[in-house]
Amino acid sequence: MYDKNYPLITHSHDSRFVTLRFLQTQQGRSRTGLYLIEGIRHLARAVEDHARIQSTFLDPSVLRNPFGQKLARRLIDRGVPGVRLSPRLYRDLTLAGEPQGIGAILRQQWVPLAHVRAEQDSLWLALESIESQGNLGTIIRTAEATGVTGIFILGSECDPYDPAAVRASMGSLFSQRLTKCTPRELETWAKSNGVTIVASSPAGVLDYKATRYRFPAALLIGSEKRGLSDQLMKAADLSVRIPMRGGCDSINAAVAAGVLLFEMSSQGSAV
Amino acid sequence: MYDKNYPLITHSHDSRFVTLRFLQTQQGRSRTGLYLIEGIRHLARAVEDHARIQSTFLDPSVLRNPFGQKLARRLIDRGVPGVRLSPRLYRDLTLAGEPQGIGAILRQQWVPLAHVRAEQDSLWLALESIESQGNLGTIIRTAEATGVTGIFILGSECDPYDPAAVRASMGSLFSQRLTKCTPRELETWAKSNGVTIVASSPAGVLDYKATRYRFPAALLIGSEKRGLSDQLMKAADLSVRIPMRGGCDSINAAVAAGVLLFEMSSQGSAV
Repeated sequence: MYDKNYPLITHSHDSRFVTLRFLQTQQGRSRTGLYLIEGIRHLARAVEDHARIQSTFLDPSVLRNPFGQKLARRLIDRGVPGVRLSPRLYRDLTLAGEPQGIGAILRQQWVPLAHVRAEQDSLWLALESIESQGNLGTIIRTAEATGVTGIFILGSECDPYDPAAVRASMGSLFSQRLTKCTPRELETWAKSNGVTIVASSPAGVLDYKATRYRFPAALLIGSEKRGLSDQLMKAADLSVRIPMRGGCDSINAAVAAGVLLFEMSSQGSAV
Repeated sequence: MYDKNYPLITHSHDSRFVTLRFLQTQQGRSRTGLYLIEGIRHLARAVEDHARIQSTFLDPSVLRNPFGQKLARRLIDRGVPGVRLSPRLYRDLTLAGEPQGIGAILRQQWVPLAHVRAEQDSLWLALESIESQGNLGTIIRTAEATGVTGIFILGSECDPYDPAAVRASMGSLFSQRLTKCTPRELETWAKSNGVTIVASSPAGVLDYKATRYRFPAALLIGSEKRGLSDQLMKAADLSVRIPMRGGCDSINAAVAAGVLLFEMSSQGSAV
């Protein structure tokens, strides 16, 4: 059914396949400003959230789900270009445990810092050098669930468009406003917008649950191994910790972000 | 330095290497009651927590960290048997992104249900059919941090001794008391020990944060895709949900478990 519209690619040297591969690397994504998504759920949310879909790729022998087929049809009708991949090439490309036979190339969307304004009562998130891209995506998913207005991405290690991050975000990525900036820029932005900077750290001064947050507020989450940089710790108006029991000195970064965001979000909505 | 004590294995057909490989499979673990751990941090915690170390394996060309070398020396001095793996075999075996050159075979520790008693104010966790072993390990790590007394494992998909679960637990696994049981057995245990069963579900009746929990209490977490079985939902004394904003209808299971456990734990300690 896609034959007329989408050319079939069977060779791994085909430049269109090489491009797909290239977008699985950080270099490829940063050079082109594009990224890959995969799977029916992700693609459906991308369409729903008006994400900028450049083209699609599919393997008709795998794309058996009627909803997925309808989605592909809809994209063709809209004039979105695409290619068919041979089963071998699709298998080579996919990172999914149970591939669904469809994916797309999207344009990254970054909001320039100068365009970002903090409304009263808004909650923000700043992520510095998160190492696990799975954690990064999971945190982006939690950010949507807790009503975060926008996410600041600090440090080159942090790539929300990495395939593992995209997968873990479960589609939340498309509706989030992402801004790249330096710690210094974040500090200046927070000051001029009256935003309280809340650092999270095992060495934080305040118990996160006993703290009354002033909004607008931005929560800072640092690297799993190194925590937040000194520069950001100094920029913070307050630092909070999650008290732990047993021999435990740390929890997973995405869990910590979730615990803090749900607490702050519930206080924000009570204002 | 390990030459005298540990024989060198260079062939993948060597029965000792085949055993290591076998323990990476669920079948291998359930047949033998053993499992694998890897890395210096994990091994150090295993020693500290008196986990039952059967034997070790190492690649001296990779094991360069002085603390790791000291740990290996200590195990040899204690008479723990071990083998050296050739660099190629170690690389074949390891799941670590940055292998540290040391690991061990441990005996699984399961506490029979009949031995489990619920103290006043204690917090328990029951995990039913968690699909992602990474989530499972992350939840076990959070359980330690929130002072959970013991964890019930329901459903054969849930294997806390899977290598990905072991890794994500960051050593918390060794100090946790794990019990395998059926939903029916859990219900009977809870009734006879006066334990409140708290089901978590997107369809939960109560807001998790507005609920005052009665202790002892057991939190039930279900499969990422299917949630809790009807049987467990019926067994529950109350069901709670985490309210979400935006277009979000769900968050990562390990994040949800973390948010709920930290709330319940903080209420428990306030009793």
